[in-house]
Amino acid sequence: MTSTTSNPLWSRRERPLRLECRLEFPDYPATRDFLDRAAALSERTGVHPDISFGRTYVNLTLPADEGATELGESLCRFANDIEALYR
Amino acid sequence: MTSTTSNPLWSRRERPLRLECRLEFPDYPATRDFLDRAAALSERTGVHPDISFGRTYVNLTLPADEGATELGESLCRFANDIEALYR
Repeated sequence: MTSTTSNPLWSRRERPLRLECRLEFPDYPATRDFLDRAAALSERTGVHPDISFGRTYVNLTLPADEGATELGESLCRFANDIEALYR
Repeated sequence: MTSTTSNPLWSRRERPLRLECRLEFPDYPATRDFLDRAAALSERTGVHPDISFGRTYVNLTLPADEGATELGESLCRFANDIEALYR
């Protein structure tokens, strides 16, 4: 079963197929703490989102595999794990 | 003296005035190590570039102050410090 994320934090985008989300933080230490935990998650899972961030925001993009028509288990699991880190 | 960076790593862009650079890394640990050192530099200087990164690249954007016609000392010093971290 290829799960689609039921995850409101993330938006599913097409062409190319990907998940995107934007996270806001009260200050830089909070942004930094999240980024460190997301990095640890990437190292544990081998899933490396494209991330852009500034002092109090983080944008994450999870591209599906080239040519894929579904997001795939590992991407959706990573997206859910990121939501758990953020909430 | 308002310095303009003599720093080849960075490109000066207009509208809005900013410095930009793209850094490539051999693997994720090297990217991670650079990002951690850049974060420490931001915490020390209070200068927070907009950063986007993936597994083996980091893009940094240093926007000049709103309406500024020059980049300013702190921005140029930060750009030079980033180059020192990267070289």
